[in-house]
Amino acid sequence: MNLLSPAPVFTPVATCGTIHGVGLGPGAPDLLSVRADRLVRGARHVAYFRKAGRPGQARRIAEGMLRADVVEIAMEYPVTTEIPLTDPRYNEQLSSFYAECTERMAALAHSGEDVVVLCEGDPFFYGSFMHLHSRLSGVVPVNVVPGITGMAGAWNATGVPITWGDDVLTVAMATLPEDELVRRIRDTDALVVMKIGRNLPKLRRAVAAAGREDVAWLVEHAAMPGQRVTPLTKAESVTPYFSILLIHGQGRRP
Amino acid sequence: MNLLSPAPVFTPVATCGTIHGVGLGPGAPDLLSVRADRLVRGARHVAYFRKAGRPGQARRIAEGMLRADVVEIAMEYPVTTEIPLTDPRYNEQLSSFYAECTERMAALAHSGEDVVVLCEGDPFFYGSFMHLHSRLSGVVPVNVVPGITGMAGAWNATGVPITWGDDVLTVAMATLPEDELVRRIRDTDALVVMKIGRNLPKLRRAVAAAGREDVAWLVEHAAMPGQRVTPLTKAESVTPYFSILLIHGQGRRP
Ligand SMILES: C[S@@+](CC[C@H](N)C(=O)[O-])C[C@H]1O[C@@H](n2cnc3c(N)ncnc32)[C@H](O)[C@@H]1O
Ligand SMILES: C[S@@+](CC[C@H](N)C(=O)[O-])C[C@H]1O[C@@H](n2cnc3c(N)ncnc32)[C@H](O)[C@@H]1O
Repeated sequence: MNLLSPAPVFTPVATCGTIHGVGLGPGAPDLLSVRADRLVRGARHVAYFRKAGRPGQARRIAEGMLRADVVEIAMEYPVTTEIPLTDPRYNEQLSSFYAECTERMAALAHSGEDVVVLCEGDPFFYGSFMHLHSRLSGVVPVNVVPGITGMAGAWNATGVPITWGDDVLTVAMATLPEDELVRRIRDTDALVVMKIGRNLPKLRRAVAAAGREDVAWLVEHAAMPGQRVTPLTKAESVTPYFSILLIHGQGRRP
Repeated sequence: MNLLSPAPVFTPVATCGTIHGVGLGPGAPDLLSVRADRLVRGARHVAYFRKAGRPGQARRIAEGMLRADVVEIAMEYPVTTEIPLTDPRYNEQLSSFYAECTERMAALAHSGEDVVVLCEGDPFFYGSFMHLHSRLSGVVPVNVVPGITGMAGAWNATGVPITWGDDVLTVAMATLPEDELVRRIRDTDALVVMKIGRNLPKLRRAVAAAGREDVAWLVEHAAMPGQRVTPLTKAESVTPYFSILLIHGQGRRP
């Protein structure tokens, strides 16, 4: 630099922000990891998915943890159960929804802002964030923080270990066809079924057909207010909203 | 109480301590939950399992977090791979080992001390602590803190989600018979195999027989110093100590 030249004018160089997909764990505020806790409490921008008109499970977990001046971005699903999964319009609508969310996140990152995307459980385990992650990767910096899964919260709630020794654990979604569920439930030691909702009657029939109704448990709102653990046979009255079905393994235990 | 009687002499009532089985997560010190972090840092007594002559994975994760005046109880397995699992002496030796550890924990609790048992990953997921938990339950207060599993650390290390949509995830141990492994690997969308160690050659043959060698990953020391992610086909030189094999699901993604 020529010492006689006038002082240079500094135009700030825009550094790109990072999109953090942060696993919040199953529900209790002290079951976030130390890393996740720091990111959530420090975030200027938080985003989360939710059904229209609902608070959103991830947002609920973060209640009381956010900065007073936080900017919240609620990403509301255009469809959830109104259109069947098999209808091509379901995919189209969700796909353009995720594309819009991606644009919004990318725009924030390009303007230099970090965004913390709140994810229930672990972000890479059947999570919605994955649909942003795949679209944002290579476009802006993306960082994923693993979390305690909802199923770990659920087996912890039962007070009984899920797997021992050589047990095989099968994780399946209640959205699978009934005969496929029966086959899977027959052919495993330990079982986790998620995404139950309106599939509960089908799931109950499948567990019964596999001969395992007496050892199955339904856990609602694991590690959250309203946590409830019910034997499947007594689950008639249970609203299966946000619930997990478990069968514990019986493997080797010296 | 008669107001004229002499002041009572208070003998302290011994309150029983609690045995905490605390999940430490996959390895990184900031991947403990906030609840686990508090318990570990505050503990006067910590206990952990380890192979004789090894530091122990759980103890290693807690390095740098323990109180200066902590009392450490290393519980060393009497056997690991010297005796085959099928030999009845394996069960006998392990069983009396767990009984001794249980007595030691119960004695501490009865003397009013809390003990934090350090557990890698989640305590109820193929963990050794389960063998203390089943023996201590109903004897002294036991508390379990869930943790991020090693497998979540592993799929996070690959940077790729493990399960999408309706994917079925199978978790199996490499200690299973080879034909059983082949069958399981064929019949699942996503796969996690743990307890690999000396079973790597068998596991590789099984993955190849199931036709999925090109999509399998080996993750060593997930979320720890020395983390390494290797395609299974390139894994010849890998020491599979403390490693997890993964096949990512390819389910529905709008
Ligand atoms: C879109 S998946 C998200 C899973 C999440 N990423 C995880 O790691 O657990 C949503 C399903 O997770 C299950 N789930 C997650 N957390 C739960 C909790 N705390 N209690 C009950 N069910 C839970 C329910 O079955 C729900 O239908
Ligand atoms: C006795 S099991 C304990 C599992 C643990 N409770 C959990 O939740 O992950 C030990 C096996 O866990 C796997 N494992 C656990 N944490 C790991 C990590 N950070 N990296 C690689 N493998 C891990 C290895 O396959 C190992 O053989």
